Amino acid sequence: MTEPAELRERPSVLALSGGVGGAKLALGLYHVLEPWQLAVAVNTGDDFSHIGLHIAPDIDTVMYTLAGENNTELGWGRAGETWNFMDQFGQLGGDTWFKLGDGDLAVHMRRQQLLDAGCPLSEVTARFCGAKGIHAHIWPASDEPVRTIVHTADERKLPFQNYFVEEQCKPRARGFSYEGAASSKPNQGLVDALADPSLRAVIICPSNPFVSIDPILKIPGTRDALRACKAAIVAISPIVGGNAIKGPLAKMLGELGSPVSSRSILDHYRDFLSGIVIDEIDAELAATMDLPTLVAPTVMVDLDDKTKLANTVLEFADHLAMKSN
Amino acid sequence: MTEPAELRERPSVLALSGGVGGAKLALGLYHVLEPWQLAVAVNTGDDFSHIGLHIAPDIDTVMYTLAGENNTELGWGRAGETWNFMDQFGQLGGDTWFKLGDGDLAVHMRRQQLLDAGCPLSEVTARFCGAKGIHAHIWPASDEPVRTIVHTADERKLPFQNYFVEEQCKPRARGFSYEGAASSKPNQGLVDALADPSLRAVIICPSNPFVSIDPILKIPGTRDALRACKAAIVAISPIVGGNAIKGPLAKMLGELGSPVSSRSILDHYRDFLSGIVIDEIDAELAATMDLPTLVAPTVMVDLDDKTKLANTVLEFADHLAMKSN
Repeated sequence: MTEPAELRERPSVLALSGGVGGAKLALGLYHVLEPWQLAVAVNTGDDFSHIGLHIAPDIDTVMYTLAGENNTELGWGRAGETWNFMDQFGQLGGDTWFKLGDGDLAVHMRRQQLLDAGCPLSEVTARFCGAKGIHAHIWPASDEPVRTIVHTADERKLPFQNYFVEEQCKPRARGFSYEGAASSKPNQGLVDALADPSLRAVIICPSNPFVSIDPILKIPGTRDALRACKAAIVAISPIVGGNAIKGPLAKMLGELGSPVSSRSILDHYRDFLSGIVIDEIDAELAATMDLPTLVAPTVMVDLDDKTKLANTVLEFADHLAMKSN
Repeated sequence: MTEPAELRERPSVLALSGGVGGAKLALGLYHVLEPWQLAVAVNTGDDFSHIGLHIAPDIDTVMYTLAGENNTELGWGRAGETWNFMDQFGQLGGDTWFKLGDGDLAVHMRRQQLLDAGCPLSEVTARFCGAKGIHAHIWPASDEPVRTIVHTADERKLPFQNYFVEEQCKPRARGFSYEGAASSKPNQGLVDALADPSLRAVIICPSNPFVSIDPILKIPGTRDALRACKAAIVAISPIVGGNAIKGPLAKMLGELGSPVSSRSILDHYRDFLSGIVIDEIDAELAATMDLPTLVAPTVMVDLDDKTKLANTVLEFADHLAMKSN
């Protein structure tokens, strides 16, 4: 599991991503670039410790997706998964609210072993990518724990997985905090990429800004580095036709009193964004956006959708970079 | 998972057992007795800690066998097992020399969780039996660690699983020790059963005397309690026609300079044994044995073989008890 020589070269495109939606675009980028040109800095705010194991759902989703191992039926976990562990664990009184497939469990077990042996999360992830033949960089946004906490209308502070899986996003959100963020450090690759004058583009994947991208932005220095970055920074709006393609984003925006619109996404990233990509269904919105806006099909079903969007986004970023020079 | 009322009653038959061979006879006894009349005190000398989990191979074999969940094809582990965990764990650089099936792993994970929470091994085992609907008592011989160490001719001291699985019993044995035995305490149920004047019989299952039964006998007080026991104590010889049905027993006897014969088994248990059952293939040996010896078919292939041998052994024990009164 030695690192291929090309991984020692600097990536040319940096993507910031959460889980499923972000991983789809990451896969598109992975296909249209040389693999080692892509770096994906992945949200760790969903990470948690469960039955003694460090679970990193977004890292695993991106990893499984780039390795072609993701379960497209379930939308999470591994393809061809079996569930004997969970069945037996439940029969013996173990917790079953968080579903762990048999193969998936091996990733968590091995990760915990390596973490216990003093290996940082970024190195564990690099090793796993090596073993799976992934030649892109997948970086946990930080090696230190950053944990998304959902503050609910009924005055509870719910760790993300309890909100997301156990309570199925039902509680009304009134805000978010990011435990550990203040004392965390950003991944060094992420810092270096953002400071690299030859970086081609930064892509904010169509992920949830509150629970997928903000946990990255709250790591000290990250948002400033994005503001200072010389490359074009393009976000793909996860809001399509007044709804989120997946997950609780539309519900969250409503509960926080923001319009369920790509305008809210633009406002969220305004201080560092060069341009935004919105879906063709929202074409009429483009005229009202006060930042370069590209209208394109953003719903990714098959690989063709993903590579097309990846090319579109990269061309848009190149166009923005040319204009600013 | 509350204990059925009948489990609070004292068992009438106590079996001492290792893994596969012993579990076969235990299953026979389980079928011919009322379930709660049977107690099986199981070897823990094979137990070890692996990838952070307490593995108890013999307890699990007896448990899976009485629950009807044992894998008869492999001769170990669970029926209908899948191996996704192990495949993925190995791909990521994890240890794979000790094969852990997906469902089997759940048992070890849950056991470790409960042990970490302060639950003794005997209570964990009782809970698992409850969950699996096993109405016999399965007792780890001790809650404290007793670990079989194989001393090899090339001066190594190999923990049992390293000898048995990793080195496939190839090293020449010159003796055994039982780490932790001196400071261990026997299971209280085992102590009570042996002292119970109404106990019907003690059955030494056809298990390896060195690595399955001796780790029980080395727990302080156990051998004395067997000597003092009022019930008939019957051993079923694991040596059939000059070989062991399974495992390294014949090889071990040879390496230790003992005849590969049921006579060696008799000598091993002589100080507390009331009688011995030997296989019909060794019938001519009976005349040379200086202890009551019953000749019977001891090779157990199907359930019928197991229940027949169980009945034979119990009748023999009853006969010996009657004679001694």
